[in-house]
Amino acid sequence: MTSEQTIIASAVQSWKQNVERAGKVFSGLTDQQLQTEVAPGRNRLVYLWGHLTAVHDAMLPLLGLGDRLHPELDAAFVTAADKAVDGLPSAAQIKRYWDEVNGHLMAGFGKFTTSDWAGKHTAVSDEDFAANPLRNRLSVLLSRTSHLAYHIGQTALAPK
Amino acid sequence: MTSEQTIIASAVQSWKQNVERAGKVFSGLTDQQLQTEVAPGRNRLVYLWGHLTAVHDAMLPLLGLGDRLHPELDAAFVTAADKAVDGLPSAAQIKRYWDEVNGHLMAGFGKFTTSDWAGKHTAVSDEDFAANPLRNRLSVLLSRTSHLAYHIGQTALAPK
Repeated sequence: MTSEQTIIASAVQSWKQNVERAGKVFSGLTDQQLQTEVAPGRNRLVYLWGHLTAVHDAMLPLLGLGDRLHPELDAAFVTAADKAVDGLPSAAQIKRYWDEVNGHLMAGFGKFTTSDWAGKHTAVSDEDFAANPLRNRLSVLLSRTSHLAYHIGQTALAPK
Repeated sequence: MTSEQTIIASAVQSWKQNVERAGKVFSGLTDQQLQTEVAPGRNRLVYLWGHLTAVHDAMLPLLGLGDRLHPELDAAFVTAADKAVDGLPSAAQIKRYWDEVNGHLMAGFGKFTTSDWAGKHTAVSDEDFAANPLRNRLSVLLSRTSHLAYHIGQTALAPK
């Protein structure tokens, strides 16, 4: 591997480790356990799982990897706060979406070259990207990795 | 900037944004506010701040940037759990250490080339690194960025 291939592989590995860690936290819980709030009056685990799934789904068009698979998740898990919407998907449904969305992302990442990663994401104009080349695909990946780790840290506080 | 320079700059930016975010969370709090637990019976904010400072301090030798500045922090903030040790440093002291340690790291990062980032960290042998080139300096940076984001997420749950 060249230095730049190694560096990209390290960033993708960091993403993957966090996805797997979150998957382990959430997948082992029943629908009832997912109703637990991470701290008194704060988000329930089910909300965080759906929220992360929705945010990852939105990475597909942002990175130029195609349309969203589950834009309908935003109403319950992004636009609305927890407990504002009734009738959330079941644990089994969210797990299916989670695996599907993260699988699509990993497949897409495998095809990116270094210059794809350094290239602009779809939500920035050519002019803005010329002014700030850090608005690239890799920055999206790193920002979403931090977002994921941020919420994993919260799940660790939920009463068992 | 070449693609590889852009990619390294994105990773360092992600680290820096998380360090600044944590700095804002903790620096605005009094010694008394830092006594707040992030959730009932869990770590206090002061412990998380000292813990992050100690873990970042340990990155200096791990990345080949020199000796630790504050190895004495480990006894209270890494080896021991929260509330197991009396007489923690004051908020003003931790802030001084935090700024000093993160300043040293940023100065070191500014001198690394792409191949330095792709090179092995100091806790892996030549043989193990040859078998797994992802045990490089950039992976340390990304892993510590996730660790930082994980605990920032927890601070957001502390009662105000």
